[in-house]
Order: sequence, then C-alpha cells, then structure tokens
Amino acid sequence: MPGGIDPHTHMQLPFMGTVASEDFYTGTAAGLAGGTTMIIDFVIPNPQQSLMEAYQQWRGWAEKACADYSFHVAVTWWDESVSRDMGQLVEQEGINSFKHFMAYKNAIMATDDILYPSFSRALELGAITTVHAENGEMVYQLQQKLLAMGITGPEGHPLSRPPEVEGEAAARAIRFAKVVGVPLYVVHVSASDALEEISRARAAGQRVYGEVLAGHLMIDDSVYRLKDWNSAAAHVMSPPFRSKEHQDALWRGLQSGNLQTTATDHCCFCADQKAMGRDDFSKIPNGTAGIEDRMAVLWTHGVNKGRLTMEEFVAVTSTNAAKIFNIYPRKGSLQVGADADIVVWDPEATKTISAKTHHQNIDYNIFEGMEVKGLPSHTIANGKLVWSEGELRTEKGAGRYIKRPSHASVFKALDKASARATPTAVKR
Amino acid sequence: MPGGIDPHTHMQLPFMGTVASEDFYTGTAAGLAGGTTMIIDFVIPNPQQSLMEAYQQWRGWAEKACADYSFHVAVTWWDESVSRDMGQLVEQEGINSFKHFMAYKNAIMATDDILYPSFSRALELGAITTVHAENGEMVYQLQQKLLAMGITGPEGHPLSRPPEVEGEAAARAIRFAKVVGVPLYVVHVSASDALEEISRARAAGQRVYGEVLAGHLMIDDSVYRLKDWNSAAAHVMSPPFRSKEHQDALWRGLQSGNLQTTATDHCCFCADQKAMGRDDFSKIPNGTAGIEDRMAVLWTHGVNKGRLTMEEFVAVTSTNAAKIFNIYPRKGSLQVGADADIVVWDPEATKTISAKTHHQNIDYNIFEGMEVKGLPSHTIANGKLVWSEGELRTEKGAGRYIKRPSHASVFKALDKASARATPTAVKR
Amino acid sequence: MPGGIDPHTHMQLPFMGTVASEDFYTGTAAGLAGGTTMIIDFVIPNPQQSLMEAYQQWRGWAEKACADYSFHVAVTWWDESVSRDMGQLVEQEGINSFKHFMAYKNAIMATDDILYPSFSRALELGAITTVHAENGEMVYQLQQKLLAMGITGPEGHPLSRPPEVEGEAAARAIRFAKVVGVPLYVVHVSASDALEEISRARAAGQRVYGEVLAGHLMIDDSVYRLKDWNSAAAHVMSPPFRSKEHQDALWRGLQSGNLQTTATDHCCFCADQKAMGRDDFSKIPNGTAGIEDRMAVLWTHGVNKGRLTMEEFVAVTSTNAAKIFNIYPRKGSLQVGADADIVVWDPEATKTISAKTHHQNIDYNIFEGMEVKGLPSHTIANGKLVWSEGELRTEKGAGRYIKRPSHASVFKALDKASARATPTAVKR
Amino acid sequence: MPGGIDPHTHMQLPFMGTVASEDFYTGTAAGLAGGTTMIIDFVIPNPQQSLMEAYQQWRGWAEKACADYSFHVAVTWWDESVSRDMGQLVEQEGINSFKHFMAYKNAIMATDDILYPSFSRALELGAITTVHAENGEMVYQLQQKLLAMGITGPEGHPLSRPPEVEGEAAARAIRFAKVVGVPLYVVHVSASDALEEISRARAAGQRVYGEVLAGHLMIDDSVYRLKDWNSAAAHVMSPPFRSKEHQDALWRGLQSGNLQTTATDHCCFCADQKAMGRDDFSKIPNGTAGIEDRMAVLWTHGVNKGRLTMEEFVAVTSTNAAKIFNIYPRKGSLQVGADADIVVWDPEATKTISAKTHHQNIDYNIFEGMEVKGLPSHTIANGKLVWSEGELRTEKGAGRYIKRPSHASVFKALDKASARATPTAVKR
Repeated sequence: MPGGIDPHTHMQLPFMGTVASEDFYTGTAAGLAGGTTMIIDFVIPNPQQSLMEAYQQWRGWAEKACADYSFHVAVTWWDESVSRDMGQLVEQEGINSFKHFMAYKNAIMATDDILYPSFSRALELGAITTVHAENGEMVYQLQQKLLAMGITGPEGHPLSRPPEVEGEAAARAIRFAKVVGVPLYVVHVSASDALEEISRARAAGQRVYGEVLAGHLMIDDSVYRLKDWNSAAAHVMSPPFRSKEHQDALWRGLQSGNLQTTATDHCCFCADQKAMGRDDFSKIPNGTAGIEDRMAVLWTHGVNKGRLTMEEFVAVTSTNAAKIFNIYPRKGSLQVGADADIVVWDPEATKTISAKTHHQNIDYNIFEGMEVKGLPSHTIANGKLVWSEGELRTEKGAGRYIKRPSHASVFKALDKASARATPTAVKR
Repeated sequence: MPGGIDPHTHMQLPFMGTVASEDFYTGTAAGLAGGTTMIIDFVIPNPQQSLMEAYQQWRGWAEKACADYSFHVAVTWWDESVSRDMGQLVEQEGINSFKHFMAYKNAIMATDDILYPSFSRALELGAITTVHAENGEMVYQLQQKLLAMGITGPEGHPLSRPPEVEGEAAARAIRFAKVVGVPLYVVHVSASDALEEISRARAAGQRVYGEVLAGHLMIDDSVYRLKDWNSAAAHVMSPPFRSKEHQDALWRGLQSGNLQTTATDHCCFCADQKAMGRDDFSKIPNGTAGIEDRMAVLWTHGVNKGRLTMEEFVAVTSTNAAKIFNIYPRKGSLQVGADADIVVWDPEATKTISAKTHHQNIDYNIFEGMEVKGLPSHTIANGKLVWSEGELRTEKGAGRYIKRPSHASVFKALDKASARATPTAVKR
Repeated sequence: MPGGIDPHTHMQLPFMGTVASEDFYTGTAAGLAGGTTMIIDFVIPNPQQSLMEAYQQWRGWAEKACADYSFHVAVTWWDESVSRDMGQLVEQEGINSFKHFMAYKNAIMATDDILYPSFSRALELGAITTVHAENGEMVYQLQQKLLAMGITGPEGHPLSRPPEVEGEAAARAIRFAKVVGVPLYVVHVSASDALEEISRARAAGQRVYGEVLAGHLMIDDSVYRLKDWNSAAAHVMSPPFRSKEHQDALWRGLQSGNLQTTATDHCCFCADQKAMGRDDFSKIPNGTAGIEDRMAVLWTHGVNKGRLTMEEFVAVTSTNAAKIFNIYPRKGSLQVGADADIVVWDPEATKTISAKTHHQNIDYNIFEGMEVKGLPSHTIANGKLVWSEGELRTEKGAGRYIKRPSHASVFKALDKASARATPTAVKR
Repeated sequence: MPGGIDPHTHMQLPFMGTVASEDFYTGTAAGLAGGTTMIIDFVIPNPQQSLMEAYQQWRGWAEKACADYSFHVAVTWWDESVSRDMGQLVEQEGINSFKHFMAYKNAIMATDDILYPSFSRALELGAITTVHAENGEMVYQLQQKLLAMGITGPEGHPLSRPPEVEGEAAARAIRFAKVVGVPLYVVHVSASDALEEISRARAAGQRVYGEVLAGHLMIDDSVYRLKDWNSAAAHVMSPPFRSKEHQDALWRGLQSGNLQTTATDHCCFCADQKAMGRDDFSKIPNGTAGIEDRMAVLWTHGVNKGRLTMEEFVAVTSTNAAKIFNIYPRKGSLQVGADADIVVWDPEATKTISAKTHHQNIDYNIFEGMEVKGLPSHTIANGKLVWSEGELRTEKGAGRYIKRPSHASVFKALDKASARATPTAVKR
C-alpha cells in the first residue's frame, strides 16, 4: 500500500518556553518505522515575525529529515506584509495551506480580525485554510477560574477545554469559510461537538474537511486523573482527550467520510519539560507523540475490529491527505509515475507498544502496553528500503521538501459557484 | 386575553448619529392601540459610560410612557465598575436581563472578552443574558468589500449580513452560555441558521430562548432591491429581512416552541434620517416600526392561517415573555391578583394597515397595505380603558416602571444541576 | 398544585393470557396515595371485536375506581364498523384519542393498512391519534432468532426490541400523521431514536407530542441480566428499559419541551404471572407498576437535581396531559371553576420506596430501595380529602368517568392549514 | 476517463401492462453515445415466480446488448425457494445485489415480512440490499383519495407520492438494514426527506449508500401541471420530480458524499403507452429516459457550475458504482488490467438535447431543449471504438454479462463488527 502521510506533526517545535524533543531526523525515522513516509509539519511564526523568515527557519531545521516533508504555515497576526508573504509562499515555495490557532490567547491566537483577511487571501491564492478549533478566550477564562479554585494539576487541563470550546471554534471557522467561500480543514477533531459542525456543513455542500488523531480515537480523559503526576501530564495536549462517547463518534466520523484523515500532532515533550507546569496545569507544554504507532493502532482498532475496511484504512492514513493537500497521485497512490513511497503491510505481525522499544525521542508512550496486530514489515521511501523486518536503515537528510501546488480542483469548483452568486448593485 | 408584551423596543434611541423618532409616550400609545400593554426597552450605555448613569437617563426619558415598561440593560464594555453596576441594577433597580450586541464593531460590539465575564456575572446575579446575534467582524469586512465593489445602496445591507453571520453568533453565544451555565435569550431570530442553533441547544437540554419579530415572519429580502431608495432604506434593520424559506422556518419555530416570544424591535427612523446613508448603506440608521401592528399581523397570518392556535397566540404575544422575564403571573395572565392589562379581541374586525392611519410616529409602515382580520376592540391598561373601538384615551405618564425580580426558577434548576457537576482537584 | 394525571395506565388488563393484578379501585387508590388524581386508561378490543362492546366492558370494570378516569380506545383492526364505532365513541361517549399498537404481530398490531384509515377517520372526528411505536415485524423476527440461539431468558427481551425498532415505528407513525394531517401522540418514548424523530417533526412544525415513563427515565437495561429470574422478569415491559445514554436523552426531552407528559404504563403482573414465560422470554407478560411513585420520583430526580423547574414539574405531571387531551382547564389547573383535584406537596418529606409498603397490588417495585424526597402530604380528589399524611381515605366508586371533548384547538389550526394546501386538478 | 456506469436501468421491462420501448440493444447503444459503457439492469420476478426463471428470462433479453451489463435481482415475495434461488444467484451467477420495491401495493411491493428475511439472507450471502423507497400503502390510499376528489390527471401523480412517503420508506429500510447488519443502497433518492435519513445513518457509521437520477437533479414538479397531457404524462415516474428545494438538496448530497452514484432509471414508454392512464394517473406507466444524456447533463450542471469537481464527476458517474457493486477496479478505473471502457471527454463540445436527435427509442426527452457543454467525443467499450465524433459503431451482442463477486470488503468489516456485538444468554 502507499506509504502513510501524517499531515500534522511538530518536530523540534519551540513552544511554551521549551523545544519539542523530537527533531526532524529522529521524528521522520520513527515515522518510517511505523509505515509513514511523509509528514506535513508546521511553520509557526511568532506574532510580528515575518512569515518568510519563519519559513526559512523551519526549512533549515528540516534538512536532516530522512523522509519527505512539507509545511503548513500558520497565520498568527495580520498586516500587509503577512498577506504579501502568503503570496510568496504559495507562488514560489509550494505552500498551499495556512493554519490558524483559534486558541492560545496572548500568544498565537488568530482572532476574527485575523481570520477573515487571512481566509480571503488564501482563497485568492488557491490555498486551503486550516484551523486549530478551540475558543481561546473561554480556555483562558476557565484556566483562571480553575486555578482560583485550587485545581492546579493536569485534571484542570480538560476542564479548561470542554468540548463546547472546540465546537464553538469549529462552528465559527466554518461560518467564516462559508462566507469567504474558501475550503477549510479542521485539524485534530477530538469532540463530537466539532464533528457535528463539520458533518452539518458538509451535508450543506460546504467544502470542509476534518482530521482526527490516533490518540483521540483511543484514549479517554481518565488519564488526566491518574495519581502519578508525570503520567497525567504526559497526556496534556490540546484539544485534550475526551470521554468515551466522543471516541465512538470519531470512529463514526471516519466511517461516514465526514472525517477524511488521521494524524498524530506528534509533538514530544519529556518529563522534565512537562514539569514546567507542575504547579499550574496551564504551563505544562502541550503535546504527545504517536507518529510511529498511528498506522498499527488504526489497523488494530479500525480494520481488525470491523470499523474500517482495508480500503478505508489506506484512504484515511494516506490517500485522502494527499488529495486534500493536492499532492495526489504523486503521493497517496500506487501508480506508475508516483513517488516510490510504499509499505508492505503484515496483517499478522504483532507487538506491544512501549516507550522502551519505540524509536520516538520521548520517554512516554500514550499507547504504552497496547497490543497491536498489523505492522509494516518493510517501508520503502523514495525508492529506498528504509525499514525491513524491524531494522531501520535511514539516512539523515534523505528526505525531500515537497512543494504542493495551489489551486486544487475544489478551488475551480468554488470559483464557478461563486461566479454564479456574485452580488450586484441595484440601478436607481 | 392578557395584554400583549413587546419585549424588544427602542423608543427615542440615540443611534448611528440620530435619535429614533418615536418617544416613550407616542410609542406606548401606539402599542395600546394595537393591544400591547407593556414594553421592555433597552438601556444602551456607550462604551466607557457607567451603566447606572445610562440607566438613569433612560428612566428619565421613559417617564412619559402611557403603558407599563421595563428595561434590559446592555453591556457594551467591561471593567470592575460594570460588574458592580450590574449588581446594583439587579439588586436595587429590578433589572433581570443584560443585552450583548455581538455586532456593531467599533461601536457597541461585545467581543468574547466581554461576553464571558458578563455572562458569569449575570449568572451570579440570577439575571438572564440576551444577545443580538451577528458576527460584527464579518459584517464589517463584508461592508468594506461591498462598498469597494460599488454596491452602496440598501441592497448592500442584507449582502453584508448573510444568515451565516447570524448563525455564527448564535452558535457562539449559546456555547458561552453553556460553559458559564447561564440561561440565554436570543433576540430577533431572523434566520433558520440561528433557529437551528437554538433548537439544537434546547434539544440538548440547554436553557435557551428565542424571539422573533413580526417583520421577520412576514417580509422578505426583495424589499432591499426596491427601485425607490426611500422604500428600500425604510426596511434597513439588523438582522435584515431574509429570503422566504427563512420565514417558513421562523413560523415552524413558533409552532415547535423553539421560539417563545414575538416582538418588534420597534425603532423608528423617518426618511430624512434614513437619508444619512444615501451614499453608503452602512450609514443608514437601522430600525423599523411595528409595535402597533404586531398582534394583528400575528393573528391574521398565525391564527387565521392555521399556523398557531389561539392559545399559542396568547403565549407568544404575552405569556411567554412574562415567564422568561420573570413577571408572570403579574403580567401575561388573566388571574386574580394580576395587573389589569387586558385586551378584548375582535376576531372579525378588519383593517388595512397604513402609515397614513397608524399611530406610530414614523412616515413608513413595513406592513403597508396588508389587510388584517382580528384586532383589539378594547385595551385596558392597569385597570383603565385606554383603547376603545378605535379611540385612544391614553394619559402621558400613566405607565409605570416594572421591576423584574432576579433568580427566576430556571436559575434554581441551573444551580442544582451545576452543583452536581462541580469539578474537583485530584489529590496526588 | 393540581393533581397529577397519569395518561397511560392499564388496570385489570387482559393481556398475553392473563389479567393485570391491579384493578381500577386498587390502582386509582395507589395513584391518590402518590398525588395522581386522574388516569387515562385504555380500551383494547380484540381484533374483530366491536369497539363499542369493548368500551362498555371497560366502563363496567372501571366503575369501582376511586379517582376520575377516562379512556383511550385502541384500533386493532379495520372495517366500516370500526369507523362507525369511532364516530359514536367520539360524538356520544367523550373519547378523543385512539391508540395504535405498532407492535404485537399476530395479535393487536396495527399495520399500515389500519393506520392510514384510522388516522384519517380520527382527523375527521377531531380525535388525536396515539401510537405504541415498535416495529412488530422486527420484534417478531428477532424473537425467533434469539430463541433459536438459545437465548430464552429475560435478557432476550431488550435484545428483541432494540432502539431502532422504536425509532422506525415513531418515524413511520409521524410520516403517516403528517400526510393525513392529524395530531399524533407517541406513548412511552424510551429511546433517543424515537425522541429524535419527534423533535425533528416538531421542529418542522408538525403537531406531534411525546410521553415518557418514570421508569424509562430512571432504570437501565442491566436489570434484564439480573441473576434472579424473577427480578429480571419483573422488569419486562415494552419498550424495554434502555442503556443509560437514553435516559439522559429523555430528561433532555422533557427540558426542551419535545416530550410533554410523564406516565407510568402501570400494568401489574405478579411473579406467578411473569412465570408464564420462564422458558421463553417472549411469553413473559409485559408490564410494570409505578402509578404511586411517579410524582415522587420525578420530583426527586427532576426538581431536586435541577433537571426540571417546579413549574415544569407541574406541567409534565399534569397540565400538559390535560391540554393535549382537551380537558384543560377543568383538569390540570388550579383555577376558579376547575375540578377540585389538588395535591399539597411537601418538598421535605422523604421515604424509601418498597413493594412492602406501597399501595400497589403487585409484589415487586421497580424503584425498590430508592429514597425519594418530595411527597404529597395531602391529596384532594373531586373536593374530598383522600390522602392525608400517609392515610388513604378512598371510597370505591367515587371516581367519575370524564368525557373529553373532540376538536381541541389544534384541530382548528390544522383545518385552516390544510385548507391552504388543498390540491386541485389541472384543467386540460 | 473511465466509461460511465449507469447502475439503474430497465430495458424492455414488462410493467403496468406494457413493455418498455427501449430494448437492450438500443438502450446500451444510446448509453455508449453518451459515454456510458456499462449498465446494471433489474430482473423483476412476478410474485410467486421463481427468481432463477426470471433471471434466465432477463439474461435472454439482454444478449443483444452492445455494452457490458449486469443485473440486480428483485425480491418481490418470500418463501424457502426464494431464499434458495438467492443463494444460487450469488454463488453461481455473479449477482451481488437484491432490490426491494417498497411501493406498488398489490403488485411487487415488499412488505416488512419480506424485507426482514430477504435482508438477512443477503447478509448471509454477502450481497448488498437495495430499495425503492416509497411507502406503498400511503401511495395507494392517496391515489384513491385523489381520484375520489376528481384529480385524475398527471398532477395527481406527485400528489399521491409526497416526499414524506419516500422519507418514511428510506427510514424504515435503513432501520431494517441496521438491525440485520447488512449494507443498504437506496436507489433514486429524489427528496431531501430520504437524503436526510441516509445522511443521518451514515453519520452514525451505518453502511448506507444513495443514488440520484439526473432527472431528479434537474427537473421540478411543475411538469405535472403542463397543459399538454402528453407532456405531463411523459414525466410520470416514481418517485416523481420534486419542488426545487429538493434539487438543491440532492446536489448537496453529491457534494457531501452522502449520495455516491448517479443513474437514470432509464425506462422508456412512448406516448401511446402513457395514454393507458389518460383517465387515471395511477395507470400511466411509470418511467422516463436518460441514459444518453446523464453524463453531459451532470457535467454541464455539475462541473461547469462549480457544484462538482472533475474528480467528483468521475466518481459519481462511474467509480463509486463500481466500488459499491464490487467490480472495481475492473470497472470504474483507468488502470493496467482494467477493462478498456474509456471515454474521451470534450469539455468544449456543445449540443442541444432533443428527442429528434437522440438515440434513445422514445418519443420524448425530459431534457428537451437543454444546451449542454461537455460531451464524449469518443467512447471505447471493451477495447473497441464504438462512438467517434457523433458516429455510433455498435455491434449487437458485443456486450458481455459481468459477474459481480459477493462479499465486498464492507462485509468483512460488518462481520467483525457484528462479532464484537454478539448477544449472549445469562446463566441463571
């Protein structure tokens, strides 16, 4: 089958006062060990930082990657220079997606007055918009309230980010995208509240896509009440893990096609980094790992349990991401002319996931102890055998930066549709 | 039947650089002629203006009213003094509802960082929250875009405020109310988009209420494309009149009980005032009249057409507003001990609505030419016969300010429900 | 507050080869002890039996009742005589509701070819239609399948009647009612599947009502897997108790107003009767008790837990049933002129529910051991004190048969609405 | 692009007392002229007729086809022999789909007691179930009522089959499929009522598919009120054409993926055949043509108007049908090893559709006068050029019967899912 694409990773991300422990080399290597042959990572400029400058930074960091990679670029502030840089990124650098964090107030939050012009500009450029859907204001207020109540441990994390916070932001982003007329991709949908918004919008014909993380499909919010602080903190990521009914909903989202892709939001912080928030959950660096385990987990709990067909497995781990981000059929397919990113899948192979044995550069594994059945026996990346029966043969820097063209065919459709609806003045 | 209650009027409102032409005397008189014996008007402080000061202003203006009245108070900015004033208004002045304009950027718009603390404070005080649900940022951006396209006439008004703009804000306010745990009342629901949000929230058990205007039930958006500028501009109000399918949806909202009240947003601007926006639709003062016609229009198109039963008519024109705003059974009922606000309804009486004959102080009637069947033959306000077979016998200043107690019974239920869900810290 | 109305009871019902152990005297007495002053029971003719004959039978049985009562009449077959008897029942006997069992294949099941003409005739007569919503064919097939699999115990009961079976029938009945244009009342809604159908229909403006039983609000389907056969069998009723998420949904249904009434489906079978199905769950007589406990259970888990306001409690235990079945304000209100059916409610009174102490003529109580807080201290029925601080003072035969007039106001609305939509032929 | 697949045709169907005028040769030839290289037609046994016998009949009629073909087989009655024949059809004849007409009372209607065992048997065999979703009882009753009212013309046709009739049957079939655990395909979805049922089921993870006809996407119900009886009657098919809002909904269904395939229900009756119902609309043979026009209409109003991308066009005209009916990638793809069914599409070619110039053997075209842009310049069927720039080069009998294997991969997933949910007996 075609190699997996993880459309949501954060290698060596500088975030919340520290830097993610997994770099582009170790991270892509772990991906190859798990059957993932391409990642799409994120360039996240600081507010007031030039997008181009940030982009160059990330390009530099990524040079050591051993699998192919691409970037989404975040829009965290707005002025004319941002608009200009977006143009340059699309037209010269092969960026076709822009990310907006609706959370993280006082940091990188994109408020309505950023969302609107950025969405409009993306439409102009033929680039898809993406959002991290959480209402940053509510999160901020709830954090203050919980801390004031004396709830300072990791259990405060999900309490400060209830599903409504995600539902709200998804609903808002979808309406902005509708009014602007641009396609929208909602990253890491974790709650039925957001999924419902996406499903309703899709049923109304809107071009909205949703991504779900392996973690959100499998892990529930009881982890935040673990007695061991380190274990609880190791699960802190946003949006948080949810109660079980949300997991059922997310699987149904994949089955129905209302969610199209699976990812990991791979962003590694070790125990000493997590410890920064020992007295205040809002200071725990947000992030968990998963790039190595995504495909095996999906196969075990998806295909083996009858939730997904094998064809659907390929679609949600690879093909759909390639289509949405406009690199299909070069990626995400087995065809003459496609890149030779291939996984040989052994549906009978088993292992027990553990931090002790994984290739990820992090001291914790959120799937610790899970027995998986279905693993890549061989991974071929860009024509080279890089994973063979448990042995990694990666080469630092072998990964290539993949340019993604703008104006995927959905833009042509949206253009024609919008041409039919152009408003006119009344002659009086 | 009990006298009508119009829970949404703006008498002599200073707005968009002018002042509404209908004052508290003429406005309440017109109401009595139409069977409405009480209004709830709005105190709207300027940002940075003290709420108490604004409240005193409005109380002064209202002294000449000839029917009973009460006030919602708008929260248009936030600091500690606002919070303090809210307390005084609830505890000493009989205010139990606070309004938030989610539209009108750069003026009175309540952004998320105002909504959250205001909703929280309202909950504390046992006061209901209300919102004008339109996303001010989207409206602003669309106005700029349309004006730049050369669309300057009234037809630009609805184009700058599409249904999605209303749906977004309703969805957002509902999520804020859910997270805070406070009841919410959405004023002038005009679009199925917002109605759906309300209906979904109600089906999920949330305490959300919706109001619909007589105008939104009857008039469609073709009025904005009338060749006569004055006629088109006379219909400019926000949210705007919508396409016909929204009207059908709103009637269904009343039938299902997802919408509970009917109002008018009575806010009169004459042609010379509307002319302020002759070159720029965004400068046309927003507002239309209707207090005199609401009940007859509702009877004619509701009861006579089989959309509403007679009992439902009474509920949506009077009783439900009294219940939601916690003045039932003093208002909204015919019972021993209730205020003697009574309408004798003649279901056979007919007339043709016209600006030439109405009692409203405005030169235009959005229901012009509509034949209604079903009119008040007599109106008794506070025990006095004030409308008798076409003759108004009002007395300036006879209307009383009605204090509304806080902590309607829904607050007790919410308190108990929230006590069951109080978060706790994990002992580690 | 007004006395409770239980709109769904089966006193001394001949059913599944036996007769319910509670008669009209003991049953209504138990009701009075619990604050319920009126019941609406069911006349259920055998297929081919004259409706008038069955009606007379039930009238005879009911003469000993000590609280007021009325009857729904079931339509279990169809021919001209049934249509004629429906007319006589409505016009002369004060029946205004007809019941249709969509379950119980090979017995009293109303198939589509009965539903349509019966609904049409009910509309003509101004009588409301009601349905027991379960697809009898699916139940029958699943029973056969489960028995063939060797599942013969009470655990087979809910497996043979999954929520989809109820959702299907509700959806079908609602569509029939829509096409015919008649109001519909769905009895004992137990599953979110059916509630959703009702909520959707209501949101679309259709006149559909839903009833929920105290048992379905409180008890989950784990009871069918109790090790003790008698205990498991004691819970056999249709529709069965459901998994917990359905209970949450049902409470939300009451909160939103999509469900309007609460009832019990009081139908008592003792252990020796239940034993008829010891080797075959499909032969266990269907029925559980509850008339005495409904109001206390609703208060305890509704009002005390913040799910319902006190006003809503009165509405869902009394007023709404009176309105829907067109005996308001004679019943369901405290007004000059209303029947003196009154409950004095003591919100501080407590007791533990038990079959050992209840007044119901059955050896099991599905609420056994539940501590309730909030009980009637006194019940007045038709002006007489019949329950006072724990003492029953009932008089056999004191209950009166209550005629219910046809053509509730909703029929006038439906007539007018349907007049607007009358189809016409094209002249060619 | 891969040749079109029309999964719903009725060549030379004996129906309502006559036989469709288009035979397998003329019909498949017209398809090739329009870019459709394969059809799936229907074997429809009379009640009591052996399925195998009917199947052989149809196989005989189809031998002259000039394009590849396959068959769905209808289950119109039930006994052990039907079950046995289903087995033989699947295991020996390459049938993997069974059709159920929920309409046509007193003829081929499949009532609940046929649906359940047939769905169960299909699951056993790994064959997909399909339904024509209309409630036959309601249709029958409405026909009687309308005729009694003197509405005998074609305008009675849609009045006797309102959208609720379709919504009901879709809801019912979906619930049966859910309970049985079998995939379901709803043919010719024409109303938003049915689409909503499908969308809801899919969002809940159920394996339900929906087909839409080119006619239902484009034509509204005003055609039934045409003054010319012949023109009105020419549009009589079931489900009927609907009011415009349904067409919008159907397009949205394709966009969202809730509808996967497009078809024609190609079933030709000429004016003299339609005349059989001149005095009674219920006797007008049901059917319209379209196989030649489907792809051009879809391109013109789908791709050219921005409703569909080009990729979606290929999916909904070809690939999805191949996948659902388990002949992918042999059909529905351009791959090494696939059948050489290929269309060369000229997006700039235009024509005006007309019965005068079409290749279909019928005297009326429901798209008469429509200008289409986007046409096949060349069609290759099974490796032979059969349509070239307007010239048909078909060969009678060149079409092959295509066996379709059972147990598409969705059955494996359903098996595993159902294994997880197998009910068990309680040991007592």
